[in-house]
Amino acid sequence: MKVGIIGLGLIGGSMAVDLKRKGFADEVIGVEAEPVNAAAAEKIGLVDRMAGLDQCIGESDLIVLAVPVGAAVKMLPEVLDRFAEAGDEGKIVIDVCSTKEHLARSVRYHPQRRQYVASHPMAGTEYSGPWAAMPGLFDGHACIICDAEESYPKAVRTVESLYEALNMRTIYMNSSNHDVHTAYVSHISHVTSFALALTVLDKERDEKHIFDLASGGFSSTVRLAKSSPDMWTPILSQNRDNLLHVMDTYIEKMQAFRKAIDEGDEAAVRSLIEEANKIRRIIR
Amino acid sequence: MKVGIIGLGLIGGSMAVDLKRKGFADEVIGVEAEPVNAAAAEKIGLVDRMAGLDQCIGESDLIVLAVPVGAAVKMLPEVLDRFAEAGDEGKIVIDVCSTKEHLARSVRYHPQRRQYVASHPMAGTEYSGPWAAMPGLFDGHACIICDAEESYPKAVRTVESLYEALNMRTIYMNSSNHDVHTAYVSHISHVTSFALALTVLDKERDEKHIFDLASGGFSSTVRLAKSSPDMWTPILSQNRDNLLHVMDTYIEKMQAFRKAIDEGDEAAVRSLIEEANKIRRIIR
Repeated sequence: MKVGIIGLGLIGGSMAVDLKRKGFADEVIGVEAEPVNAAAAEKIGLVDRMAGLDQCIGESDLIVLAVPVGAAVKMLPEVLDRFAEAGDEGKIVIDVCSTKEHLARSVRYHPQRRQYVASHPMAGTEYSGPWAAMPGLFDGHACIICDAEESYPKAVRTVESLYEALNMRTIYMNSSNHDVHTAYVSHISHVTSFALALTVLDKERDEKHIFDLASGGFSSTVRLAKSSPDMWTPILSQNRDNLLHVMDTYIEKMQAFRKAIDEGDEAAVRSLIEEANKIRRIIR
Repeated sequence: MKVGIIGLGLIGGSMAVDLKRKGFADEVIGVEAEPVNAAAAEKIGLVDRMAGLDQCIGESDLIVLAVPVGAAVKMLPEVLDRFAEAGDEGKIVIDVCSTKEHLARSVRYHPQRRQYVASHPMAGTEYSGPWAAMPGLFDGHACIICDAEESYPKAVRTVESLYEALNMRTIYMNSSNHDVHTAYVSHISHVTSFALALTVLDKERDEKHIFDLASGGFSSTVRLAKSSPDMWTPILSQNRDNLLHVMDTYIEKMQAFRKAIDEGDEAAVRSLIEEANKIRRIIR
């Protein structure tokens, strides 16, 4: 199978390497709009060959849209348009984005909708670009396939085998539930890390040496604050309603801590910590 | 030298192992009030022998108070009282706590104040108790010595060589600056993790499977929420004023994100993320 990957960053680049390595793809064709990234992807050897967007869509059996979700929302209907023009019902396009409702809405009534499979491989690091791509990135993680009933069953099976080749376990849900879940288990973590970084950076203006003391705990809590604005601006915008709901709960919890600490109510502080400790039964 | 360690949890237990292993201590005497922990510490072999509190203070040349800061504030003046009774100006007591102003205040006018060296080895994990103790815990981390001019120079030199044996680099500051710094680079990270755990646990009541999807990013952000309430309740209480100030800044930053997302202002979201990204120049 010929796989075309549009966007050779962390996700697209890592997928390119492993789909070839695991034998799922006979050939990987890469598209990268940013010239510096394209040159790097080529030099690193992430794909078999680079191509223009039209050529890639024309020649590939399966296309992976590995661009930020803002760009994906625009490109997805265009790719399906191209499938229609080519009259080829066998071609498949997938996305790998962290929000799904906007994407789903963008092609809901598209005549080629069933050639699209919505998928979200839940793996990544705080780094981005072709330099961040690595073999094994997806290994052992979960992949969500959304609204599978909207796609051709054969297309879904092909995408399942793609993620099997990446050694991921597949979970199924609709786009709307997907976006609620990711707001809780991914998006809010990024916002809390960004806010933590901003807080400490504010202080650093006066106290240059504050970071000399930064502990391992701080580093792990603030790590996601290094994440790319190109990727995260559209995610936070597109998952607006779910995220605002989670942020409001989060701010309430912070206010509960603030009140307990402000009032010197050690029993209340202890009880909040004990409640939070229940995360132990879930996160190893 | 005989080293007495009061409290054989993560910090005391790890220190016991390495001070003996690196040859700083000829003998390590342990005190542990909690019977289950005492039995475990003995079985694991963290110390050469266990003793009662009085015996340990009587026999040790250097005493490490490795108990939560609430208990340390009560015990520190008592240990200095015992030094006075014994009439031995050569004995030293150190603490290893994460807040310093309350401790400093508790012995400011004590006639034996100069036998106390305030120290904070900045290392740890989210686990606690003698089972969490491990060799090498302190390796390569920073240790803060506070108000060194209030201690006998000879006592400070001994404590410096203790932390040298643990392979830590020593930083000096006063108690008040210490507490401001730790509020920023450690305490706030714990509060944000606790609040994140509470937020997601709330949701988990309705949605049992939400954690199936938890990504590596979520785990790293929420890791500190496993931290012990025995240790953290007194830290958050004793560093109240500094922490409230940092929390207020943090909540403002969250509100700035909330507003930008709520208004669909992608330029503002991007600019907040770009600003937060500056953490990269500091945290590798």
